[in-house]
Amino acid sequence: MPRFRVVLVNPMTDGNIGAVARVMGNFGFRELYLVDPCQITEEACKRAKHANYILDEARIVDSLDEALRSSSLVVGTTGIVTTGEKHFVRIPMIPGELASRLEGHEGLVTLLFGREDLGLFHEELLRCDILVHIPTSEVYPVLNLSHAVAILLYELHLLEAGHVAPTEASGVEREKFIEFFSDLLDAIGYPEFRREKTTVMFRRMIGRAVPTKWEFHTIMGILADAVKKIRSQLPPP
Amino acid sequence: MPRFRVVLVNPMTDGNIGAVARVMGNFGFRELYLVDPCQITEEACKRAKHANYILDEARIVDSLDEALRSSSLVVGTTGIVTTGEKHFVRIPMIPGELASRLEGHEGLVTLLFGREDLGLFHEELLRCDILVHIPTSEVYPVLNLSHAVAILLYELHLLEAGHVAPTEASGVEREKFIEFFSDLLDAIGYPEFRREKTTVMFRRMIGRAVPTKWEFHTIMGILADAVKKIRSQLPPP
Repeated sequence: MPRFRVVLVNPMTDGNIGAVARVMGNFGFRELYLVDPCQITEEACKRAKHANYILDEARIVDSLDEALRSSSLVVGTTGIVTTGEKHFVRIPMIPGELASRLEGHEGLVTLLFGREDLGLFHEELLRCDILVHIPTSEVYPVLNLSHAVAILLYELHLLEAGHVAPTEASGVEREKFIEFFSDLLDAIGYPEFRREKTTVMFRRMIGRAVPTKWEFHTIMGILADAVKKIRSQLPPP
Repeated sequence: MPRFRVVLVNPMTDGNIGAVARVMGNFGFRELYLVDPCQITEEACKRAKHANYILDEARIVDSLDEALRSSSLVVGTTGIVTTGEKHFVRIPMIPGELASRLEGHEGLVTLLFGREDLGLFHEELLRCDILVHIPTSEVYPVLNLSHAVAILLYELHLLEAGHVAPTEASGVEREKFIEFFSDLLDAIGYPEFRREKTTVMFRRMIGRAVPTKWEFHTIMGILADAVKKIRSQLPPP
């Protein structure tokens, strides 16, 4: 995984700086640079909550050059998208694409976020290797700064997070499940000509639900009981 | 595309409510319900910026029931993930998974967000068809409320109304389905103490599978037949 640095260029509201620190903590990021920021008051600390250590460690610098030092890749964020090919400076990717692009990248990736109102300036965008854009509604495209940071860091965090899924039922259990369902169709005397279609439908539904082992066993138990109840009540053939 | 409603349950900070309204506007959402919220002051309007119309139109209600009215699918958000399979009440998907699951869904999808500190309560989670969790760092997992909303709405916004999917079952059909399942549990004499847990498990599985109308009716027919067969064979009480 790459190392990441978050850079806020001329942030104007210190509440936003605090909110950015907090969401950095939420997603396991730590290195924050502030280029010529507004004054940082109590409000920033309040909004940073348990991520005050990130504010404390933040580097305040005068120029973008300092903030970019030792970067191996500079990623700029932009709220404006130009579709014309000639405006290549503004042709961006979305956060999820960036995340997959960075898989396996080593080195320091610097994420640049611009001013709350005007974003990054043209000269600043020219320093970026990659541009990222968060698609929004056309009616109101201006995201809050910390929301933009939250969305980008979330996508990058997903890259690392081995988000633990509950144990999925195996193929064998899945087949067993279809078998029990088939038994139930037998027991209720389901019409032969509909069976294949219905069984495939059930298989597909189960495929989409991706049940856990526990869910499989519970439902299988219920189907088996129903079959047993129906069979035991029928007069022997 | 489904219609979406954002519900904040007992929000405690009105700045957050404003920030939620703004990000809803950014991603093209409009319908906001507030269940028993804190007082809404100038701060909320300030944070909502150009999305003040969403605050103005927000419905303030007393109970979760009112906020869930006419939902076809209820999505709950949770910061807590349980890995034990039996704690199915807490088995979630991530926002991107939810988005792809909802492709083609018609009807009203209600997104529930809990209190800033305690999230949604257990009884509230039981009302949800699908749970969503935003993976975070383990060190500081508590996201700001509006950041959580921003990330979820971003992923849903990415969903484009592309190809036409089969018509999904409505909320009414879903409830009918759960009822038939319940009847089957009755018919097989399913132990009382396990019923609630099993029924919620079934609801969640169905929520994840997002069945079509045709699937619902087919499975309901089978369950109803099984119940009828079992009942008709039993000696009258």
